[in-house]
Amino acid sequence: MRYALGVEYDGADFQGWQQLGRSGPPSVQAVLEKALSSVADAPVSVVCAGRTDAGVHAECQVVHFDSDAPRDPRAWTLGTTGRLPPSVCVRWCVPVADDFNARFSARARRYRYRLVNRPVRPALYRHTMAWERRPLDVDAMHRAAQALVGEHDFSAFRTVHCQARHARRELQEIVVRRQGEVVEFEVQANAFLHHMVRNIVGSLLEVGAGARPEHWIAEVLAGRDRTLAGPTAPPQGLVFLRPLYPPEWGLPAEVTL
Amino acid sequence: MRYALGVEYDGADFQGWQQLGRSGPPSVQAVLEKALSSVADAPVSVVCAGRTDAGVHAECQVVHFDSDAPRDPRAWTLGTTGRLPPSVCVRWCVPVADDFNARFSARARRYRYRLVNRPVRPALYRHTMAWERRPLDVDAMHRAAQALVGEHDFSAFRTVHCQARHARRELQEIVVRRQGEVVEFEVQANAFLHHMVRNIVGSLLEVGAGARPEHWIAEVLAGRDRTLAGPTAPPQGLVFLRPLYPPEWGLPAEVTL
Repeated sequence: MRYALGVEYDGADFQGWQQLGRSGPPSVQAVLEKALSSVADAPVSVVCAGRTDAGVHAECQVVHFDSDAPRDPRAWTLGTTGRLPPSVCVRWCVPVADDFNARFSARARRYRYRLVNRPVRPALYRHTMAWERRPLDVDAMHRAAQALVGEHDFSAFRTVHCQARHARRELQEIVVRRQGEVVEFEVQANAFLHHMVRNIVGSLLEVGAGARPEHWIAEVLAGRDRTLAGPTAPPQGLVFLRPLYPPEWGLPAEVTL
Repeated sequence: MRYALGVEYDGADFQGWQQLGRSGPPSVQAVLEKALSSVADAPVSVVCAGRTDAGVHAECQVVHFDSDAPRDPRAWTLGTTGRLPPSVCVRWCVPVADDFNARFSARARRYRYRLVNRPVRPALYRHTMAWERRPLDVDAMHRAAQALVGEHDFSAFRTVHCQARHARRELQEIVVRRQGEVVEFEVQANAFLHHMVRNIVGSLLEVGAGARPEHWIAEVLAGRDRTLAGPTAPPQGLVFLRPLYPPEWGLPAEVTL
């Protein structure tokens, strides 16, 4: 039997979705597989929709796994959550068709980045927001960002460690808005390269702070050269909101196109 | 010279605004006075607009203090923040008239309470939101809450430890709204009794969950008996948003009526 799970986590305590070495903090995947295996009373391994880096959060990561253990969705949801650390929980569980794949069935992924824009570092929301002390022109950032919409080679915003075979991605939407002292980026693409959102945010900050003109973003994209883009924005401001799947899979509304 | 400071903090690490005993975690007041004294190079003591309990946060607490140290507002803001733990910062500093008093000059205080309403506990936002697993009728809660608006004796929503001389307060506004799975309460009064917001929230949850009818809130208020009200909601969902002062004091817009 194949199941899909919605998983929420605070990335601060983890070395990312995936275990990279034997030392250091655990990965989200490791603690989730341990909890699921305990509920199943047999080894369970999971495949996720989008791997996140150390410090990056998820409101609704989606994974699939196979198990013949006679457990209903409520047991998978509550039993697994009860065996997870406080920084991770299972939002929901649904049985899915055997050919559903959390990674390959996803048609889009949606991320949000938030930062506090003021002279003083954040205190109350320091776990989920980054900090930019330079005053930002958010309208200029939003206009500049529109050059990224469409299908492009995003090599300029890809880390050297990225393992993807090619850099063509379709960026479907990007919005930059201000709510008081908080600046929020929301971006959706069919898929993302490693560090792509954080490199886009870091580059847009150069425009917002007036260090670069608006048309610079289009130039960086066209140059396909990572060394020309802005710095990588820090991880704590980034949240993987959700992957999106065609309605045929019967997943909850929050992850359905 | 008298100064007013806007102070933001994450209440999780503190035993509350005020030191209650010699053991346990420090108070926000203690770490703030230590940092200000270091910047002033002389002992500084502060008076706050509204004392908060252990675990309760503040977006903008306001304090006043006196110092003859020749420091400009920028030095008080950045120098003090640099000496505070990551969970506290100074948002701003302004010089004020000698008869300004952070507590007695405030005409109103505004609080927000947030909780995640779903079967599974929160993970990502567990530091700043509480959890209610029973499905909540938010419209019923909002309607019931309107019985609290106006000047009343709020003894029913006051902890036995409350030290206020009387229980009459003017509740100026209360709004209950839902944004997805998050339920948010915002409430403003001239002043609050000890645990008043958390006791109001705990009572409204009984209405929202269908355990009590809407008119029960008005009955509890009229009864003036704490033992008749609902349980005290947990602290981590509560944020002291800001006190509000008449414009004559020349404070920043975020704390001006």
